[in-house]
Amino acid sequence: MQSPVQLIPQLAAHLIAAGGKRLRPLLTLSAARLCGYQGERHTGLAACVEFIHTATLLHDDVVDESALRRGQASANAIFGNNASVLVGDFLFARAFQLMVDDGSLEVLRILCSAAATIAEGEVLQLVIQNDMASTEAQYLEVIEGKTAALFAAATRVGAVVADRPLEDAEALDSYGRNLGIAFQLIDDALDYSAVQEQLGKTVGDDFREGKITLPVLLAFARGDDEEKAFWRRVIEDREQTDEDLAFALQLMRRHGVIEETVARAREYGERAIESLRGFPDSPYRRALIDIVAFCIARVR
Amino acid sequence: MQSPVQLIPQLAAHLIAAGGKRLRPLLTLSAARLCGYQGERHTGLAACVEFIHTATLLHDDVVDESALRRGQASANAIFGNNASVLVGDFLFARAFQLMVDDGSLEVLRILCSAAATIAEGEVLQLVIQNDMASTEAQYLEVIEGKTAALFAAATRVGAVVADRPLEDAEALDSYGRNLGIAFQLIDDALDYSAVQEQLGKTVGDDFREGKITLPVLLAFARGDDEEKAFWRRVIEDREQTDEDLAFALQLMRRHGVIEETVARAREYGERAIESLRGFPDSPYRRALIDIVAFCIARVR
Repeated sequence: MQSPVQLIPQLAAHLIAAGGKRLRPLLTLSAARLCGYQGERHTGLAACVEFIHTATLLHDDVVDESALRRGQASANAIFGNNASVLVGDFLFARAFQLMVDDGSLEVLRILCSAAATIAEGEVLQLVIQNDMASTEAQYLEVIEGKTAALFAAATRVGAVVADRPLEDAEALDSYGRNLGIAFQLIDDALDYSAVQEQLGKTVGDDFREGKITLPVLLAFARGDDEEKAFWRRVIEDREQTDEDLAFALQLMRRHGVIEETVARAREYGERAIESLRGFPDSPYRRALIDIVAFCIARVR
Repeated sequence: MQSPVQLIPQLAAHLIAAGGKRLRPLLTLSAARLCGYQGERHTGLAACVEFIHTATLLHDDVVDESALRRGQASANAIFGNNASVLVGDFLFARAFQLMVDDGSLEVLRILCSAAATIAEGEVLQLVIQNDMASTEAQYLEVIEGKTAALFAAATRVGAVVADRPLEDAEALDSYGRNLGIAFQLIDDALDYSAVQEQLGKTVGDDFREGKITLPVLLAFARGDDEEKAFWRRVIEDREQTDEDLAFALQLMRRHGVIEETVARAREYGERAIESLRGFPDSPYRRALIDIVAFCIARVR
């Protein structure tokens, strides 16, 4: 993250200090070792994965006008939207530079393709925002793009540096993709069920922005005409009063949508674990299985 | 620019319809043929160069809150800042995907490095904005980053696909870099000297944003105390009345700063032409020389 332009390491230091789970680089490291890789290339590539993720976070926070990220003031709130857009661009470019230094065209192909898919997912999210006619299929397409594609790439790269056959690369891709979907389902449930301190971002952000997530789609589908009118007003028209979030949470409880969202996440989590069946037991395999449980246990 | 997410080709179609000079891809095409390259790889790479440029334009217009681009409403004005940020990210990623398909790590290295340098230049521009203590050296660093780096990469890539020795790659890099500086100097002069229709963007944008460009630095350096106070008020404090742009133009005329800026551009243009001395006369060499004249002749 170094640069002679001081604002870049300054903004980077803010991001590093804010912490975060570093889940995606952990996936690359674990997947590589699971595949018996003994070298050190996986650490640089894990950093690339985290850089791509960080760049998308910087741009997301600009797009969503978020004030909080990882429990801290977001970069755009401190340094401004402009700095966040441009430092995000720098991190994207730096990630690709690091990959070029690594020298594998196959790794470059996987991560460039993931970066394009992330952007497509984010654009689709923008398109269906505030539209209660959006479908579960569209929602799934959004989260497969904006979240699961990078999880899949992060784990797939592990098989590629270890020079394993396509079958193993695809198994790890499937693990990462299903884990990523589970992760995002839980994230979307947390936006309606977490307490502020636990979440590290503002509770109800998705609601205020009129974002289409599974809890909203399920509550809408299960609601009567009056409830449907409520969802249209708050999500489509974005006419919200101070009491509307509390009422939305009440409707979600009535229809059990958080439980249903978590149940779906569990299914994807099971598919993720199932994808690892071809790998013999090892500390790395157990770590990857634990990560699934960790991601889902975030909703209590 | 294709994608199943319709907003992406829609926004892309807007950009394509808006035209533009397509100067950077022209540089890649001409440089490759100048180097005797007979294949077709240079067309794909020229497209990558234009994609990177387009992505930076999309993000620039968000950062600068520009309403006009190439004489048309800018993408952010029509589709919103969020779409511009995200489609810009998509184009960056797509450019890198196309380069991976091309398969040359050397080309990837050159263009990834240019992308990082562009972002650094843009961040530095943000940092020195509204600061009359900024120096000519800092201004040069900004334009070498935000503009000249991609010109240099665009021409250098031509030598690389043609498998020419490092010496030729460096000569074409030097041509592109000096042309890029000349081009940006002229761009910055145009912001104070063009008529609206000619410019294709809003005249006085740089002034209103308090951007530090050579015309402003020269007018400030050559001004008396009262004039310096004027520049501090309008650029640093951004306190501007309707008459201030006209007065700024009057000061610039008094001190001949547009002529001086154009003279500097001419010097860089001559260095660009000088960099081509090792290449024998050919239609491509003449085209590259003509491009220098074309870029400088934009100020009448």
